[in-house]
Amino acid sequence: MGNPTAAMLVIGDEILSGRTRDANMYHLAQELILIGIDLREVRVVPDDGHEIAAAVNDLRAKYLHVFTSGGIGPTHDDITAENIAIAFGVPIEVNDEAKQSLATNYPNGAADLNPARLRMARIPLGADLINNPISKAPGFTLENVHVLAGVPEIFRAMLENVLPGLTGGEIIHSTTVVVPMPEGDIAGPLAELAGAFPNVSIGSYPFRTSYGLGANIVVRSTDGDLVHQASKEIADRFGVQQ
Amino acid sequence: MGNPTAAMLVIGDEILSGRTRDANMYHLAQELILIGIDLREVRVVPDDGHEIAAAVNDLRAKYLHVFTSGGIGPTHDDITAENIAIAFGVPIEVNDEAKQSLATNYPNGAADLNPARLRMARIPLGADLINNPISKAPGFTLENVHVLAGVPEIFRAMLENVLPGLTGGEIIHSTTVVVPMPEGDIAGPLAELAGAFPNVSIGSYPFRTSYGLGANIVVRSTDGDLVHQASKEIADRFGVQQ
Repeated sequence: MGNPTAAMLVIGDEILSGRTRDANMYHLAQELILIGIDLREVRVVPDDGHEIAAAVNDLRAKYLHVFTSGGIGPTHDDITAENIAIAFGVPIEVNDEAKQSLATNYPNGAADLNPARLRMARIPLGADLINNPISKAPGFTLENVHVLAGVPEIFRAMLENVLPGLTGGEIIHSTTVVVPMPEGDIAGPLAELAGAFPNVSIGSYPFRTSYGLGANIVVRSTDGDLVHQASKEIADRFGVQQ
Repeated sequence: MGNPTAAMLVIGDEILSGRTRDANMYHLAQELILIGIDLREVRVVPDDGHEIAAAVNDLRAKYLHVFTSGGIGPTHDDITAENIAIAFGVPIEVNDEAKQSLATNYPNGAADLNPARLRMARIPLGADLINNPISKAPGFTLENVHVLAGVPEIFRAMLENVLPGLTGGEIIHSTTVVVPMPEGDIAGPLAELAGAFPNVSIGSYPFRTSYGLGANIVVRSTDGDLVHQASKEIADRFGVQQ
């Protein structure tokens, strides 16, 4: 399937230490599938400049889009922007438009922009700003890397401002066939069906209820007719009504 | 800090498509911190053999331990074990001990082990089994790679059987100072304090309530006295009672 590809880089010690449960990965995955962009990889790295820059360079070479979350606030542990600049080999400096946006968030405007707050207006040279309607400190897009905040409500708001500008792909059609049998009993026939539909992705996700074992068979393709046909054959094969 | 390091590899299209919200990463992070093992990186990759093998080889070279989750069931999309074998360049074959364990899960024992179920007894040569008390299909440890199931209840049960065998590190002591001020107001002094305590990790996590903005300042170190001293100075500096 030739859909555009994407990766995500989650930046933050708080995720790796188990202090915070990441919510942005799940949200991004759900948003991208709706517009036919194929999320192919996620990495989580600590607040470590070398790790951030190395991961960004790996991912931006490999995928059409990279989304990062976290590390763009005003405190000393917010080091994402400067390490994106390092990854691209470009300078980072206070951006006038970012500064003006940021100033609107404070009662005395630019006069309230102490050095810590001004850190949030530092943008790698050549980047386009991503509007942050909530706390006014912008994210940015540099080439194919979209740098967003880690706070979930701000991540979401920024993402809403990025996605409409991207070229989506073919929408993935998806159907789930619920089979009330253990995976071990259906795996053989299911593999045959998967072989018969090479352009359809067929995934099996087991579950357990008080009635016994079952599997959700998820059938996915950009071709809706094929999804319909494959899911009908699966349902017929296992005697399931759809 | 010289604690043992670890990485996690989450394997599964269902996570990247947004169908399922991963729970195992958060659980592993919380378990490792308790025994002084430092989770340094997480990757999520699709059900793609090349991606699985490449990620395993990257991570096992870089970290002392690698934990994988997902892809060890009986269906055609469960391809983790064979790609771990490929990553290590070892054969994979039905393991007698795994077969015996698996057989205990079915009414007719080994007679119920059809080819799909036998797939779950295929273990890379040289690996040690990880007991699965829930559905009896074992995980395995090959050198420094621990291969666990993706279903959260089974992941957890397997992990309980792995962690006691690992050498932990120094326990990380942690204190949170809640500062009822915007990050932009505290960032300058906080950076000075962070500079004064080079062996302490000081992270700032902003929050917003109906009363206004604040930040959780998380102070962490293997040295409990330093954590106490640094958090006291932070509290004093921002007039917070602890």
